[in-house]
Amino acid sequence: MTQFSVTGFGPASIGNLAVGFDILGLSLSGIYDEVTLTKRTDREIKISNIKGVTQNLPKEAHKNTCGAALLAFQDKLNLNYGFDIAINKGIPLASGMGGSAASAVATVIAANHFLSQPLEKNELLEFALAGEQVASGSAHLDNVAPSLLGGLCLCLKNNKVIKIPTSSELNVVIFHPHIQVETKVARSILKDSISLNQYIEQSQYLAGFISACYEGDFNLIAKSLKDVVIEPQRSKLIPHFYQYQQEVLKVDGVLGCSISGAGPTMFALTNSDKSSLAVKQTFEQVAKLLNQSGKCWKLKINDQGAYTNEVH
Amino acid sequence: MTQFSVTGFGPASIGNLAVGFDILGLSLSGIYDEVTLTKRTDREIKISNIKGVTQNLPKEAHKNTCGAALLAFQDKLNLNYGFDIAINKGIPLASGMGGSAASAVATVIAANHFLSQPLEKNELLEFALAGEQVASGSAHLDNVAPSLLGGLCLCLKNNKVIKIPTSSELNVVIFHPHIQVETKVARSILKDSISLNQYIEQSQYLAGFISACYEGDFNLIAKSLKDVVIEPQRSKLIPHFYQYQQEVLKVDGVLGCSISGAGPTMFALTNSDKSSLAVKQTFEQVAKLLNQSGKCWKLKINDQGAYTNEVH
Repeated sequence: MTQFSVTGFGPASIGNLAVGFDILGLSLSGIYDEVTLTKRTDREIKISNIKGVTQNLPKEAHKNTCGAALLAFQDKLNLNYGFDIAINKGIPLASGMGGSAASAVATVIAANHFLSQPLEKNELLEFALAGEQVASGSAHLDNVAPSLLGGLCLCLKNNKVIKIPTSSELNVVIFHPHIQVETKVARSILKDSISLNQYIEQSQYLAGFISACYEGDFNLIAKSLKDVVIEPQRSKLIPHFYQYQQEVLKVDGVLGCSISGAGPTMFALTNSDKSSLAVKQTFEQVAKLLNQSGKCWKLKINDQGAYTNEVH
Repeated sequence: MTQFSVTGFGPASIGNLAVGFDILGLSLSGIYDEVTLTKRTDREIKISNIKGVTQNLPKEAHKNTCGAALLAFQDKLNLNYGFDIAINKGIPLASGMGGSAASAVATVIAANHFLSQPLEKNELLEFALAGEQVASGSAHLDNVAPSLLGGLCLCLKNNKVIKIPTSSELNVVIFHPHIQVETKVARSILKDSISLNQYIEQSQYLAGFISACYEGDFNLIAKSLKDVVIEPQRSKLIPHFYQYQQEVLKVDGVLGCSISGAGPTMFALTNSDKSSLAVKQTFEQVAKLLNQSGKCWKLKINDQGAYTNEVH
């Protein structure tokens, strides 16, 4: 049996996207985790190497996001072989950029290439979710779906995912302050209930945003990209969040600014590359002023989702 | 000065539409309130006649939905003349079919014809809201907007309304059991808060429904047209609600069944005229079985909204 390797790439993503707690996620270009699988003749799943921006990940396969995804894949498909897993993390740990989902997605998209009859991308969701669950304590689609499928994903019940159209002029900036927020902690601080008035207001933003995406209406996106439910709670975990947000929202062409996933990464959507540049400078200026370290990226939406080196 | 009359027609509407509490409303064809305004040389606003399915309405202009709308209109536009108002109610009172909004809308659409420079329909919203406020204690757009503008209206902040596209194949059935539910009472029984899990689930239904309308995806409408927030609370005001709903949801081609506005009227959306006929028969059969009296209508969506006899 020929031994061979496949490398999968799982893009970072913005979970929640301000208006859609637990149900919306946006795939990002240019930041990703990379997972290389090498086929083994035995059935073992082994983490052989971890490098990149984060290296202190669990080495035991069933505790590791990639390993757990692959164990679920191997089990369901009755594979009589195993893999060595080499992980190259491009996404910082506990940053709110969907890193664990991206690792799981990179793993399953690579694993799929070893099948004589590869599965549809949609069919890979459940295995990536199994991996994501190991990292964040519960399986949420809002990072896994955009990382795997690309674009703006609306995550419904029973793992049903709808791709919401986005304008090619929509631009993204993310700023990652160099602190870590564990998803489990970010989840535990949330109140169990919200007021009826908050619910109504947030419903307006959500429905307005979905409509605006279909209509390509940037003015309505700007009026809708707000979070009165989760942001007020989670912003407490991000030092100076409102100072960043306030300055970013002053930039011409910015359509909204909030917390990416569970934080601490912040994101902004803009109407142009020019506006994104100004937003990036603003994040960096505020960080400098506050003497905070962090990293800022000017990005596009990734419409394609996960891919492998075999396709390109 | 020539004395003349204009008759306005304000269609009934389904507020909330299961997924969009306080923010969605659907305009209905074939059921409407009719308001005839006759110009007076003095500035008085006088209810001259009330007939139709409901007649016990306030006779004092400022307490009457039509009168209050007209007073706001007269005041804002500095009219130096008044009106006699003749109301012909086609929509039962306190039925959850948007009757007070329809009366206010019929009034303002008629009044607009007396202006030398008529306002845009959108500009009439505030006057209709002033009328609606008298009836229901607070001004809500989700009946006023669809009655005035037609179609499926998404009601956002600052009286901004987005018309969400609907398939011409979408059909509507409404069943009005012969009991009254006052909007104020239906509002007062609602809890002040909802759980975070209810919020997430209902957000999936709302976003899924908006997406489904744009995509023309009836399967997704059927999966989305659900209410886990308000229906469980308000169904208590509607005897045997779940028995009706359960039977209606069994009908082939039905896309959902819930409470219209504050109730007691129930509505169902269907994928065809044929399915609507079966749903109507089901409502009537259950009513007969329960020995309840009520009235059922098989309807289309009214895309046009309010109109006057001057246009036709």
